[in-house]
Amino acid sequence: MSPSTAIQTFRAIDVIRKKRDSIELSQAEIEYFIDAYTRGEIPDYQVSAWLMAVLLRGMTRAETAALTDAMLHSGEVLDLSGLPARKVDKHSTGGVGDKTSLVLAPLVAAAGVAVPMISGRGLGHTGGTLDKLESIPGFNVNLPVAEFRRVLESCGCAMIGQTAEIAPADRKLYALRDVTGTVESPYLICASIMSKKLAEGIDALVLDVKTGSGAFMKNENDAAFLAELMVETGERMGKRVLALITDMDQPLGNMIGNALEVVEVVDVLRGGGPQDLRELCLELAAWMLHLGGASKTVAEGRRRSAELIASGKALEKFRQMIELQAGDPRVNDDLKRLPQAQKITDVLSPKAGYLASIQCEQIGTACVILGGGRERKEDSVDPSVGIVLHKKVGDRIAKAESIASIHYNSEPRAERARQLIVESCAIADTPPTAKRLLIHKIIGRSAESN
Amino acid sequence: MSPSTAIQTFRAIDVIRKKRDSIELSQAEIEYFIDAYTRGEIPDYQVSAWLMAVLLRGMTRAETAALTDAMLHSGEVLDLSGLPARKVDKHSTGGVGDKTSLVLAPLVAAAGVAVPMISGRGLGHTGGTLDKLESIPGFNVNLPVAEFRRVLESCGCAMIGQTAEIAPADRKLYALRDVTGTVESPYLICASIMSKKLAEGIDALVLDVKTGSGAFMKNENDAAFLAELMVETGERMGKRVLALITDMDQPLGNMIGNALEVVEVVDVLRGGGPQDLRELCLELAAWMLHLGGASKTVAEGRRRSAELIASGKALEKFRQMIELQAGDPRVNDDLKRLPQAQKITDVLSPKAGYLASIQCEQIGTACVILGGGRERKEDSVDPSVGIVLHKKVGDRIAKAESIASIHYNSEPRAERARQLIVESCAIADTPPTAKRLLIHKIIGRSAESN
Repeated sequence: MSPSTAIQTFRAIDVIRKKRDSIELSQAEIEYFIDAYTRGEIPDYQVSAWLMAVLLRGMTRAETAALTDAMLHSGEVLDLSGLPARKVDKHSTGGVGDKTSLVLAPLVAAAGVAVPMISGRGLGHTGGTLDKLESIPGFNVNLPVAEFRRVLESCGCAMIGQTAEIAPADRKLYALRDVTGTVESPYLICASIMSKKLAEGIDALVLDVKTGSGAFMKNENDAAFLAELMVETGERMGKRVLALITDMDQPLGNMIGNALEVVEVVDVLRGGGPQDLRELCLELAAWMLHLGGASKTVAEGRRRSAELIASGKALEKFRQMIELQAGDPRVNDDLKRLPQAQKITDVLSPKAGYLASIQCEQIGTACVILGGGRERKEDSVDPSVGIVLHKKVGDRIAKAESIASIHYNSEPRAERARQLIVESCAIADTPPTAKRLLIHKIIGRSAESN
Repeated sequence: MSPSTAIQTFRAIDVIRKKRDSIELSQAEIEYFIDAYTRGEIPDYQVSAWLMAVLLRGMTRAETAALTDAMLHSGEVLDLSGLPARKVDKHSTGGVGDKTSLVLAPLVAAAGVAVPMISGRGLGHTGGTLDKLESIPGFNVNLPVAEFRRVLESCGCAMIGQTAEIAPADRKLYALRDVTGTVESPYLICASIMSKKLAEGIDALVLDVKTGSGAFMKNENDAAFLAELMVETGERMGKRVLALITDMDQPLGNMIGNALEVVEVVDVLRGGGPQDLRELCLELAAWMLHLGGASKTVAEGRRRSAELIASGKALEKFRQMIELQAGDPRVNDDLKRLPQAQKITDVLSPKAGYLASIQCEQIGTACVILGGGRERKEDSVDPSVGIVLHKKVGDRIAKAESIASIHYNSEPRAERARQLIVESCAIADTPPTAKRLLIHKIIGRSAESN
């Protein structure tokens, strides 16, 4: 149905009433509603009532797919069919210390699978890929679409921020959800994520859905529900989609803070880095390679990824991408070229024992307090500050041993961060009973055949 | 809590989230929300999300009372304490042919109970008291508050439209509910009705909650739920409140249309009129007298009301009120002074049998089609047109006998109305098994002691 026909046929009030009364909306009704809202023909106050009805009544899978599709087509959908390689992306629901995107884009591109990655900024306690990239001197995340395509063609990966042309309905809806208590609906979260990702013109998508104290979804069942919803929505729209439910009960890796996270990314690409981060990157890369047709099995994808790191090809790809996006590629060899905080101080353990748990969201908040994140969209970010954890959950710890180092530029901020870190680390006499698995569950049809 | 403190303490988003999550709102939170909205400090899009959450999550009795109170105090509350008489009003949820207000105001005032009545206009298939009054030549329903008080002091009753000073929050909220699918919540309906009625400065209120095919609440359980909610809300606010659940499965009385309904009002005040209308007026008046302290029991109130009609005192009071509100009091003696439609035509029964049912809402719609009501607020109303029913449910009817007369000024409109009337009257070979009771149920603490 063309938009002009739809406008004559439907009324916003009927779409609201139907959703209120749990009557399934047709694809045409949802298309009309999103299209007319994007064009300013339906006022915010009608849409916010509808959003609340969606939050409280839910949506069917068909409605969720229709909403995603309508939001996707509210703006430009990149046509990357000119690129011979398959296009695969990864999306994470966000957490603390999650820098996998920076590892995955060059690693997967090195295997011949194209990665056209459009990312976001950090907000609240979670970090953002764009902020991390911008800690690399000169790195430009604001490329026009034509330039994005050129970088992608040259080196197989490119990483930019959302442009005004991509899914404008999502931007408008997100701003409204933020002030009307309608952020938390899994259906709306799914449509928001999937519409933006599918606008990249990709063939397949790997979703990293975080769960735990540092994640948006604190509860594993909620995370699994969202994951299944996104997988089914993507599959209904003809894409290969797979989701991993992964742990965010403690920060991923050891470093939190923009430039510090780039350091850890280079460590991983050099074949080192902390075990949990490295493991998750290999697992996600393996699935991206598999869905991108570069490996017959996931096991083969895992081997291939490890080889590309060992051979230095992944790091070389990272250098290429930095250079093509106007960044200083020398950071790869000389990490001191990244912004450095003026001072470093240690957070000492008040007693001996085992690190029993970390309130992960608090660690993210401590980084924001240091200046490494933003509480409001308008805030600027200090790329140099952050936290380096020396202990992870389950580790033994001596009295007055350093739990973490704080990289800071302001004494009072460092003191507040220290207090938060101390409060968020529980030290017990005995080790925690069971260490949580990094990867909880894999969801998607492709998972079953592997 | 004073508004200025409240504003500093609360945030709209938290009020929305709490309601969304079924957490009871405090009186201070509701007060803040309504107060800030009325003053334009909370945007429509936040309030509409909250309204949808209220519709889907409901409200506790304490929340409903707090909302009513906040809306009541958003504007002027009349102080009629200078009047020695007790002040009692009646409110009807609206229906077809419901002209009881015009009988009750003078009848109850004749018994020494003051009736300060603020009414509305017709919308959709239901008629409005103000439109009926305005069919009396010269009658002015737009009195300023001081003039309203003077009429009330002079004759014990006065009937006007809502002023800008009364419950402005309700006007703003109602306009928003109308376009956001949030009209139907009993909690919001209760707060809307009760805030306006209690702003009249009354001591007691009798509610006539309609149920049936011509009512807003088609279902008797819904009507009873709303009635109980309004009674409890009024009682929590220190008023004597009682509700009657009454039948609107067929029009009340025989006449529908503005001037025609005034004719029937005068008939009742003269001691005649159709039996159902007369019975309901006596019952409502009896309760108003009882709650107003003019009769010890409801039975005594019923006798007293019948006497005031028989003695002509109620009709005389009606004449006084018309005169004080600039209307032509001669209509009481000469009903031809009311606007007359140019033509009258009969709707003949297509077959013999019994009138089994009337689709009451359709009869109201037929009157709107004739020009006697409005589909949109801006529409003007033709006071002269309408429908006179010659048969009511259960009546025997011969083939080609007149079911109803149509008073009209436009041939094509009359034809559409005729068709609707024919369609809405079901004629059966046998009489309907059980005639519905006019009064289904009486709800309120006062009911138990009578």
